[in-house]
Amino acid sequence: MKTYAEYLRMVEEALAPSLCGLGEIPERLRQAMLYSLEAGGKRLRPVLLLAACDFFGGDIREALPFACGLEMIHTYSLIHDDLPAMDDDDLRRGRPSSHKAFGEATAILAGDGLLSAAFELMLNAACRMDSLRGAKAARAIAGRCGVTGMVAGQTVDVTEEGTEPTAEKVRYIHLHKTADLLCAPMEAGALLACARPADMEAAVTYGLELGLAFQMTDDLLDVEGSEASLGKRTGQDAAAGKLTWVSVRGVEGTRADAAESLRRAKTAITGTGRDASFFTELADTLLERKN
Amino acid sequence: MKTYAEYLRMVEEALAPSLCGLGEIPERLRQAMLYSLEAGGKRLRPVLLLAACDFFGGDIREALPFACGLEMIHTYSLIHDDLPAMDDDDLRRGRPSSHKAFGEATAILAGDGLLSAAFELMLNAACRMDSLRGAKAARAIAGRCGVTGMVAGQTVDVTEEGTEPTAEKVRYIHLHKTADLLCAPMEAGALLACARPADMEAAVTYGLELGLAFQMTDDLLDVEGSEASLGKRTGQDAAAGKLTWVSVRGVEGTRADAAESLRRAKTAITGTGRDASFFTELADTLLERKN
Repeated sequence: MKTYAEYLRMVEEALAPSLCGLGEIPERLRQAMLYSLEAGGKRLRPVLLLAACDFFGGDIREALPFACGLEMIHTYSLIHDDLPAMDDDDLRRGRPSSHKAFGEATAILAGDGLLSAAFELMLNAACRMDSLRGAKAARAIAGRCGVTGMVAGQTVDVTEEGTEPTAEKVRYIHLHKTADLLCAPMEAGALLACARPADMEAAVTYGLELGLAFQMTDDLLDVEGSEASLGKRTGQDAAAGKLTWVSVRGVEGTRADAAESLRRAKTAITGTGRDASFFTELADTLLERKN
Repeated sequence: MKTYAEYLRMVEEALAPSLCGLGEIPERLRQAMLYSLEAGGKRLRPVLLLAACDFFGGDIREALPFACGLEMIHTYSLIHDDLPAMDDDDLRRGRPSSHKAFGEATAILAGDGLLSAAFELMLNAACRMDSLRGAKAARAIAGRCGVTGMVAGQTVDVTEEGTEPTAEKVRYIHLHKTADLLCAPMEAGALLACARPADMEAAVTYGLELGLAFQMTDDLLDVEGSEASLGKRTGQDAAAGKLTWVSVRGVEGTRADAAESLRRAKTAITGTGRDASFFTELADTLLERKN
């Protein structure tokens, strides 16, 4: 296993070239896609994908296009989420959001382009392999980011905004809007490594529980009014009737639930019998983040 | 080979079930996706995919998920094209467009959902096969609909609107916005049938030239002010400085170019030595359409 920083460097170095390597892209579209793709962030999802593939004995060089594809999908979702008709956010990571920098039409197309490019990149890689493992990894990602996954969570978040928060509703949103996209890299990485069924299950559980804990911590940071919140919600969101875990379970309840999800994530991944310190330490870091 | 009506019935029967079969989709998202998907149309792209697979000796039942996926991609592109920030169309096929019926946020998500569902559906099918032919077909579709294909054409159409029409510019838009999406089914169908390289080339040429002739005819119908125009452009578009083939080549020039593209399409497909009457007759019908 490598360190987070080493996986991160691999991702950073491959991201822009893998997009531009698809062929001649119209200048304005290319600029808009790179503007959002290169805006930084922790690259948590692609790093998890490389780490999961590595952990289960796969070839991380082979996994790199899938890691980049997943980051493109995450990026497209942020661009479309920020649109005036959605969350109407003018800023993203301290810079003007895509539609503020390029106009709405180009922002919509940049999102569509990144989603399409993600599948093109992953399928190019899948077609170079001597088995269906690449197609299976791409399928897992498609499922987690699609109409029963991330897009479903996003839809419920948008259509239920302002309604009475219930545990069922908030859990659905967190599970699909956030956790599915942290589960996708664990599942895809394990599939690329041709992991055994029991290991697949451990990878999925780790991803989902980590995702839930991650979102709960985000909700806590929001309530505490931290400007350093990693999510999109502001300190005012809870008061504005946003569907957060804190609004259902309170601060102490959310803290306890996050700790329980974290425990489950660590139990699952250590249960594989491999040295899972990369994943247990990452989980602790994410939960303890104050900024 | 079957008739157009027979392929069409297969597509119509499979389209909604294949979307709903992906799992539990939030009600509003499902409604919005089905609203656009079931709005009808000629289903030209999925029919071409089934016919191409059949023509080259493949199994059309195996091709059906790819045909449905391609129609979902075509449908997502229409939903996003109609958005206020894009073409701002209130009507689509005589009914309110998606954002008029469901609001902008849901329309954006319905488009994102259809694009994601298309790849999920195709990858599910690809993973059931005993070779990479499904992954290769999905890859061909991803390329034709992505950042060097349809999304590229759409971007140039949007960003260059109102500028001086040149043959190069208009050809680029027609090639990518329209022809790539008629080439995709020919290419994918042939790949699913494991066609030989020379046959692949014939399929691609037929699709591209048919697409160019199709768009030229659309431009002609617009100029003739026909309300029955199949494209999105209205009779006023040419006057409004829209980038049409007629604005570059005139009515007679466009008619001649369309006939030449049609000739090339038919020459390519008959050059395979198979009975290509399905494709030559389809090409004639599309060019001669008056409504």
